[in-house]
Amino acid sequence: MLHVNENYARIKPTYLFAEIAHRVQEHQKSGNAGRIIRLGIGDVTEPLAPAVVEAMHKAVDDEAGRENFHGYGPEQGYQFLRDKIAEIDFHSRGIDIKPDEILVSDGAKCDCGNIQELFSVDVKVAVTDPVYPVYVDTNVMAGRHNIELLKCGKENGFVPSPAGCDADIVYLCFPNNPTGAVATKAQLQEWVDWANAGKKLIIFDAAYEAFIRTEGIPHSIYECEGARTCAIEMRSYSKTAGFTGVRCGYTVVPTELYAYASDGTPVSLKAMWTRRQTTKFNGASYITQRGAEAIYSPEGMKQTKDIIDFYLENARLVREALTSLGYEAFGGVDSPYVWIDVKGSSWDFFDKLLKEANVVTTPGAGFGEAGEGFIRISAFNSRENVLEAIDRISRVL
Amino acid sequence: MLHVNENYARIKPTYLFAEIAHRVQEHQKSGNAGRIIRLGIGDVTEPLAPAVVEAMHKAVDDEAGRENFHGYGPEQGYQFLRDKIAEIDFHSRGIDIKPDEILVSDGAKCDCGNIQELFSVDVKVAVTDPVYPVYVDTNVMAGRHNIELLKCGKENGFVPSPAGCDADIVYLCFPNNPTGAVATKAQLQEWVDWANAGKKLIIFDAAYEAFIRTEGIPHSIYECEGARTCAIEMRSYSKTAGFTGVRCGYTVVPTELYAYASDGTPVSLKAMWTRRQTTKFNGASYITQRGAEAIYSPEGMKQTKDIIDFYLENARLVREALTSLGYEAFGGVDSPYVWIDVKGSSWDFFDKLLKEANVVTTPGAGFGEAGEGFIRISAFNSRENVLEAIDRISRVL
Repeated sequence: MLHVNENYARIKPTYLFAEIAHRVQEHQKSGNAGRIIRLGIGDVTEPLAPAVVEAMHKAVDDEAGRENFHGYGPEQGYQFLRDKIAEIDFHSRGIDIKPDEILVSDGAKCDCGNIQELFSVDVKVAVTDPVYPVYVDTNVMAGRHNIELLKCGKENGFVPSPAGCDADIVYLCFPNNPTGAVATKAQLQEWVDWANAGKKLIIFDAAYEAFIRTEGIPHSIYECEGARTCAIEMRSYSKTAGFTGVRCGYTVVPTELYAYASDGTPVSLKAMWTRRQTTKFNGASYITQRGAEAIYSPEGMKQTKDIIDFYLENARLVREALTSLGYEAFGGVDSPYVWIDVKGSSWDFFDKLLKEANVVTTPGAGFGEAGEGFIRISAFNSRENVLEAIDRISRVL
Repeated sequence: MLHVNENYARIKPTYLFAEIAHRVQEHQKSGNAGRIIRLGIGDVTEPLAPAVVEAMHKAVDDEAGRENFHGYGPEQGYQFLRDKIAEIDFHSRGIDIKPDEILVSDGAKCDCGNIQELFSVDVKVAVTDPVYPVYVDTNVMAGRHNIELLKCGKENGFVPSPAGCDADIVYLCFPNNPTGAVATKAQLQEWVDWANAGKKLIIFDAAYEAFIRTEGIPHSIYECEGARTCAIEMRSYSKTAGFTGVRCGYTVVPTELYAYASDGTPVSLKAMWTRRQTTKFNGASYITQRGAEAIYSPEGMKQTKDIIDFYLENARLVREALTSLGYEAFGGVDSPYVWIDVKGSSWDFFDKLLKEANVVTTPGAGFGEAGEGFIRISAFNSRENVLEAIDRISRVL
């Protein structure tokens, strides 16, 4: 008889976005709804940068002829892209990451979800609360049910400290989803020191790195001394370059990074992740990788920065509006997310904005217990819609 | 301390394609090499169909404007593609598969590798020998070390029978990689009956389905009665439409398919696979899915069929040439692979063709013990190269 992986039954059903969709639908059916403006889900709205579009057209044409046709590519990603990443995302910031430590994938969500396969089922995992649910769910699906929650609230500026954390692996995401908080170099250095001291691992999700504008805020965990021996970093082009529908990201696994067999033998995580990817993945689309390469061209860099600036201005407008309405607002400076203390139930506040202002947000309770009392407003929309949403919200609050 | 998943240490290093690359390199360094013709790895060489190219250009343009911009799509795939698959790959052949039973992905290799996550570590797995290594390696990585090998040789026409197989899950691939063998409906029905009788599962890899030309050979496991309660099927556009570099495939999980909790409770595999994909995957690229949709347009179907016919003619030429040279050749009729009994060591034969004819093939030993004594010749190349390779091979054998 075919036995199921019973760990799946222990994942909490993530009703969050389904529940939001349901409430929006009910509201629309009520007959009282006007035009809905969505500032809920973190999906981009602006078109791809022209340099990226041009590169992808060219890549489609490559696939249309025998001469430049590309079939199976290296599962680790094309060298042309890995070289650009190493040069521009790391070397240009004085960070020592080599192209062969970078593995290109079809998105950070996949990598975040799959990375836990490299570790024993008995390792202990810690995540922040509130949290991006993928870190938790993928560990539960693998049989790791006892997950440590690092509470993030106003008292710690939404950045946890390693003091007292006895996990083997910690997932950190800065700029943070959902709170929009960033970590200082000193705060990240504490985690790096903690990890190195205990032969532990940091899985650093830097999906929102491109939104950092404040001087001195680290763009990469590898800006911290010693991170090469204790951290994996994930990056995504989803928010950086509007690739949510195009699908590309990458994971950095330094050569000096090890996990340990039960007899203490060190095992290279770069070798294991490479083996994982070459066995269960077949590389990101050639067309996509050519598009990603174009992000690093001078025009591509300028154009994608302009789009991020546009979203950051949206975030600033939202943050200022809510502040002037008397709400404490966090994030929204080096992040597309504004995290608002709603002084009450997050679902009630969500319902009020939906029913009275026809604006969709995300209730913080959906990201964990410590998210209760907050809502997340996303800056991903047109300027017109953001201004209209602010206007409507101002009238009902 | 960070404990590693020690199962990874038990995967056999797959030296096959690395070893081939190494031998080719050494040969080239020797100074005696002429122009190398590669009939080894199963990668396509012909350009994408014009209908697909046109659809992908249009999709890139969609991403270039605000109006038709597509961000995150459904992880299960866009409805426009799932509807076409259900209609053309299944309904048009009288097979009852609904769009919501089809989950689109970035390729069959990923799905083949990931599907085992749904099952308990203690389930017993059977594979054919010779075999596509992904089925084995992904199970070993998950802790299933005791894998049953179903020997496939001339005596059973390279199609195993379920008699005596006591596994819970069997991986079957027809048309087969590497042998090029196809299974008759009666042979597949035996497996379906075996699976239903014992509450077992067939994972049916139909990546080479588009090469079937012989009347009566099933294109899908679901042509067998009862398969909806015991089989998952995987399809790929890699060989069908030259998508090895574009990345798209799909997996069918019928609604009636269950695995069982330890107390015997049935658990829907469609729900589990959907949960797996929504948690660890973020959908195939929008541009890719628009390209895949175009395969099903009247022009797309004609154009892709012409490309397959072209490869099949290559396969026929190879098969006939080797037969006329006195070798027993299998496959190559409903398959791009010709499987040749070399009457001796497969690596020796590989070396002979490499060094004397500058032709790269794949030694059967690389696919398992039962592959020893055979080589695989792939039909994926230009006609000119295939004819030249045949000519050179004929001179040295």
